[in-house]
Amino acid sequence: MRETYHGQLDAIVVSLVGLTETVADAVNRATRSLLNADLPLAEQVISDDRIIDAAHDDIEQRAFALLARQSPVAGELRTIVAALRMTNALGRMGDLAAHIAKVARLRYPDTAVPDALRENFRAMATLSESMVRTAATTLRDRNVENAAQLAEDDEEMDELRASQFRVLLSDDWNEGVEKAVDAALLGRYYERIADHAVNIGSRVIYLTTGSAPEGDMWPKA
Amino acid sequence: MRETYHGQLDAIVVSLVGLTETVADAVNRATRSLLNADLPLAEQVISDDRIIDAAHDDIEQRAFALLARQSPVAGELRTIVAALRMTNALGRMGDLAAHIAKVARLRYPDTAVPDALRENFRAMATLSESMVRTAATTLRDRNVENAAQLAEDDEEMDELRASQFRVLLSDDWNEGVEKAVDAALLGRYYERIADHAVNIGSRVIYLTTGSAPEGDMWPKA
Repeated sequence: MRETYHGQLDAIVVSLVGLTETVADAVNRATRSLLNADLPLAEQVISDDRIIDAAHDDIEQRAFALLARQSPVAGELRTIVAALRMTNALGRMGDLAAHIAKVARLRYPDTAVPDALRENFRAMATLSESMVRTAATTLRDRNVENAAQLAEDDEEMDELRASQFRVLLSDDWNEGVEKAVDAALLGRYYERIADHAVNIGSRVIYLTTGSAPEGDMWPKA
Repeated sequence: MRETYHGQLDAIVVSLVGLTETVADAVNRATRSLLNADLPLAEQVISDDRIIDAAHDDIEQRAFALLARQSPVAGELRTIVAALRMTNALGRMGDLAAHIAKVARLRYPDTAVPDALRENFRAMATLSESMVRTAATTLRDRNVENAAQLAEDDEEMDELRASQFRVLLSDDWNEGVEKAVDAALLGRYYERIADHAVNIGSRVIYLTTGSAPEGDMWPKA
């Protein structure tokens, strides 16, 4: 019974790592649809969010079933509760990728992102996608150093967002209000994806060391 | 032992209801600081977010301790896991109220919200604050009708946000890029507060009926 139980717990972690990869792909495709005004790709990201939601629901059900049928203690309990949090964070990241694709769709055949911010968005997207992938390996390998890397990456994300604001609020901005509003909201979506990746990293630290970074048991997703 | 256990579980729900009221107050004060360019009030909301975070951590620790020390089953287990989710949602709502106050602080002594959007923001703020308070009573009374009301309120919120976009993207907009960007992000914060209130409502439905609205076990926060 305990054997099966540990097998189920391991399988949940494997599914979480797989979902993290799926979410990283969604962020990658959403960004391509945005920068290339690729409508079919945007539509695909939006409709594929159902797949992420289904995986989220499946992991949640399995984690909940383990909680209900077994009486996990200590480390196992922490893993299951963290899995519930992580699948929630991954589902939200999938929603945010779909939000990005919806902006691409809304502005098609125009490109939502103007030339002046193209490099900034490319950097922001590359960084957030890499953070999602780092979160996956952090989780798989219980790698505390990786998790600390995510916190550093997040600072870089903050700088990218600050430089984005400098561009769109400068006197040189001549792209109008709509593109500025799009950019501000898109920037917020990427920033939130990064935040969720950092939170997954923090939960891995908690799982591995039993102590939360910065005194918080789990950062709020 | 079970007596104490139920007492502890009830106490967690009482704390959650109390935290919901604290968060509703934070939203109310953040909105006043925003609309009146009230710097001391904005500072207070920002620094009081620590109180919300501390309450969040406390509820989380107590829920986790119950999970670890008892072996809750069925309804009790559902309540504890939902409490973990709810305290997370409430912590996020507190963060969002602080975000709103930070925009007020950033633009002081100017008012971040221009006259053309003042009524829209007042309506959005009143609605989201009322949704947070409804979430509190829904939770306290396990009132399924209340929870359904929250879903309706959320549609009204969507309409308010759509009308906000119509104003700030219209040809008549002469407030410039900065105020448009501020408004778009502020609108997003209020919308997310409302989303979290709806999620709390959905979880109450789940706790009360055992079946999730729309097939999802718990909506992602």
